[in-house]
Amino acid sequence: MGQSVSIYDTTLRDGCQGEGIALSLQDKLRIAQRLDDLGIHYIEGGWPNPTNPKDVAFFRHVGALNLKHAKVSAFGSTRRGGNRPETDPTLQTLLGAETTVVAIFGKSWDLHAEEILRVSLDENLEMIRSSVAYLAERGREVVYDAEHFFDGYKHNPAYALATLRAAQDGGAAWVVLCDTNGGTLPHELEQMIREVREHIAVPWGIHTHNDAGCAVANAALAVHLGASQVQGTINGYGERCGNANLCSVIPNLVLKQGIPALSREALTHLSSVSRFISEMVMEAPDERQPYVGNSAFAHKGGAHIDAVRKKTVSFEHVAPELVGNERRILVSEQSGTATIIEKLHTTYPHLDKRDPAVGRLLERLKHLEYEGYEFEAAEGSFHLLAEQILRPRDPFFVLENYRVLDGRHGAGDTYTEATIRVRVGDQVRHTAAEGTGPVDALARALREALVPFYPELEHIRLTDYKVRVLNGEAGASARVRVLIQTTDGHESWGTVGVSEDILAASWEALVDSLTFGLRRARSREMASGGGPA
Amino acid sequence: MGQSVSIYDTTLRDGCQGEGIALSLQDKLRIAQRLDDLGIHYIEGGWPNPTNPKDVAFFRHVGALNLKHAKVSAFGSTRRGGNRPETDPTLQTLLGAETTVVAIFGKSWDLHAEEILRVSLDENLEMIRSSVAYLAERGREVVYDAEHFFDGYKHNPAYALATLRAAQDGGAAWVVLCDTNGGTLPHELEQMIREVREHIAVPWGIHTHNDAGCAVANAALAVHLGASQVQGTINGYGERCGNANLCSVIPNLVLKQGIPALSREALTHLSSVSRFISEMVMEAPDERQPYVGNSAFAHKGGAHIDAVRKKTVSFEHVAPELVGNERRILVSEQSGTATIIEKLHTTYPHLDKRDPAVGRLLERLKHLEYEGYEFEAAEGSFHLLAEQILRPRDPFFVLENYRVLDGRHGAGDTYTEATIRVRVGDQVRHTAAEGTGPVDALARALREALVPFYPELEHIRLTDYKVRVLNGEAGASARVRVLIQTTDGHESWGTVGVSEDILAASWEALVDSLTFGLRRARSREMASGGGPA
Repeated sequence: MGQSVSIYDTTLRDGCQGEGIALSLQDKLRIAQRLDDLGIHYIEGGWPNPTNPKDVAFFRHVGALNLKHAKVSAFGSTRRGGNRPETDPTLQTLLGAETTVVAIFGKSWDLHAEEILRVSLDENLEMIRSSVAYLAERGREVVYDAEHFFDGYKHNPAYALATLRAAQDGGAAWVVLCDTNGGTLPHELEQMIREVREHIAVPWGIHTHNDAGCAVANAALAVHLGASQVQGTINGYGERCGNANLCSVIPNLVLKQGIPALSREALTHLSSVSRFISEMVMEAPDERQPYVGNSAFAHKGGAHIDAVRKKTVSFEHVAPELVGNERRILVSEQSGTATIIEKLHTTYPHLDKRDPAVGRLLERLKHLEYEGYEFEAAEGSFHLLAEQILRPRDPFFVLENYRVLDGRHGAGDTYTEATIRVRVGDQVRHTAAEGTGPVDALARALREALVPFYPELEHIRLTDYKVRVLNGEAGASARVRVLIQTTDGHESWGTVGVSEDILAASWEALVDSLTFGLRRARSREMASGGGPA
Repeated sequence: MGQSVSIYDTTLRDGCQGEGIALSLQDKLRIAQRLDDLGIHYIEGGWPNPTNPKDVAFFRHVGALNLKHAKVSAFGSTRRGGNRPETDPTLQTLLGAETTVVAIFGKSWDLHAEEILRVSLDENLEMIRSSVAYLAERGREVVYDAEHFFDGYKHNPAYALATLRAAQDGGAAWVVLCDTNGGTLPHELEQMIREVREHIAVPWGIHTHNDAGCAVANAALAVHLGASQVQGTINGYGERCGNANLCSVIPNLVLKQGIPALSREALTHLSSVSRFISEMVMEAPDERQPYVGNSAFAHKGGAHIDAVRKKTVSFEHVAPELVGNERRILVSEQSGTATIIEKLHTTYPHLDKRDPAVGRLLERLKHLEYEGYEFEAAEGSFHLLAEQILRPRDPFFVLENYRVLDGRHGAGDTYTEATIRVRVGDQVRHTAAEGTGPVDALARALREALVPFYPELEHIRLTDYKVRVLNGEAGASARVRVLIQTTDGHESWGTVGVSEDILAASWEALVDSLTFGLRRARSREMASGGGPA
């Protein structure tokens, strides 16, 4: 198939309409760079309106990036009713952005023209035509976004078509059919596109929202029906339920629709771009996101894990490497011995599933999960548990006792002090530390006690700390699960603890965190030929 | 249109294949009750396999719920190759679950039969036919899930069809076309369904996964093409990228496809069911989720807010009330004060948005939200904050100090003791209490101190306690937000506290919890004509 499709990214414009999404100028420039590196064809940078000084600044600075693939687009609306293009402030700011591409939206839905803009239907058509013409005559590649096209077409098909014709007559390079409210179902979209596409004389595109859960599917369908531009955002950010997620749209195009919108090589960077941008907007990544989510290739059911082992295609629609993601095998109450053998393969290559110790490990795991433990995000604790059963070792240290004192005077500051006694071999260390809270104080006192024996702990750092209340109904005496994430600069691991006492749960996760870190450091030393410390 | 569609919920089975999702027996029963209240037609409760004791127990206990609408379904596979149905363990456990409905999956994809099950293609057909027949002859309504139907049909259409025929011949009440790997695009799905539907003699259903971002759209399309059963999960939980999200599928059916799968009244409970189940599985709700997400009807762009004020349909595909959700206006200073006036209307009916105190309250709120407070689930704290600014009152008590001691000896039990000094009027109370953890001990000591002055506190009970780490990157010294839910038997309210010290954050939420409870008790007494206590 010879169809070619351009990707038009509007993360920096429509994406920023999403709740909780706000980007600094520097963020926007960094994102534009990553999108260009990926090979995106169009980057819509924002609305260069005087009330959006950040967007105005973006267009002033983006030139210095010397983007290699992407054309930069400035977004705005048609002129206001009654204005002449030459004096219309919006059109002037769009020219002032000095981009090669300008996208303007106009009203395709008669209701919007009459009741929101409050102009006559004829004046609306002339607003579209003259605005497009004014920009096109000044050398801009004009993308005409037909706002609410599908809702408009349902109410008044002849008028919706007339608005597209007005944009074409004005010289638009593209007309883009927008499902602005995101409520169109695929069979409706298909029928409308089949009716209108023969009336469109220029290349046409699709812009969908996800309010009915169909944004990605509608984009794929529109391309199948001949669209040659797809608009969307990375991770699907956008107003309300968001826009079509380019992290799904692009692999669908390349891997399933036979359209090389990005190169195969570029596609392998998609997961990394998705995570980078979720960091930039400070949103937790959507773990279940198709293709690029952390869970997208995570297998849990025992039978599925068996099957994936025999043949990956059995439960994977595409290979995770193609989009820079990876397969993960999860340990859970649903997993059987096969999963455990698979997980432990690197450390215990000769482990056999008929080994009774494997059965004991599985039983212990299920019991702990029943009590509220969760090992999917706590691989460190899982490996330590396996070690206890499969190859018991002396602990690095033994707790004698700890005590944490946490108090407050009136409305004043709180104070926290932890003391701890631990034994390492035949030596006892008794230390104390203050902290910003009881867990922090305990962590500091423990590290203080251990560093003289294990200097490698200097490099170990807690990077994340999560608390989940397990049975909230019990109020303040509920059980809590603590998950700690730790790094030594080389790798990162999670550990878990569960208790009714949040400190006891934190302590448990903390001990696993340091113990696993010490094990890793030792095995790296062994592997690199160094002797034990 | 006379088409009727049954909703088949598999949250309790396929949903639990999702990463991080684990439900206790009690959770599963509570969810089944809510699904039944909603009017769901089929509830798949799990796989009653001896290795899943929780699922076996579910089927033993679910009868006692006396569900009003839903039929309960037990899930499993066809018999193993070579087994006779009478002695096949899976079929026996399915009968043992004593449900009216049994769902079994079989292989439609020749590759799976030959390379995963390692049986001949003929034996696979006979496994399907004889398993269905065995269950149907024993009075079960048999749902046959044609696993990997679409992938199988692409590779070997004749064989995929033969597997459906085998299920029909065996007496299946339903055959369900499954997109097990979730990779099918809508135009492919449409073409395959058009080809096969005329060969299906019994009612047929659709089961889709979201690996290409098309699960909901594919479900809608299948119904458009004649499916009369839709399988999915609440909030789209499920393995990898999840299943078709019933919280999108159902409103699409009822509000857009003209199919009264649930009543209009039931539909208004959908948002609440979605949130309830996200609490049960302990997943943060997906704010951008169509229809039921917190952001689903949140308007941010200034022009959009203006338009929605003029005509809600301008930027809302359906009215939020229809699914029990609500419109939210974000960001703009103006909409901020309007929202506050709206929220405080009952307590302060004469509040005017030009009142400078309203501006101060808004500023204070924005500052606190910036620091990590969150008032959407903490209306109690919101009202106390408003009171501080709009109508300051004497506090019920003043903290002089508290001190919590939490310790542990070796691997033994932890012990926790809290002491507290509070002043009520000119009297000082100094109390101590033990607890299962520091927060519990503190709550007990505080109540002990206050009950002599405020006996109504006897009836106040904490029902939920949640902790969220705000900036995980800082490790154990991260800021935490504590949300407490409290009830006095009449109503329930949330309160919030934020600090780097988890105890200080808990204390803050606890003080608000009791203070708000006392305010409510007083205002109820006033309203009922009783004097102040």
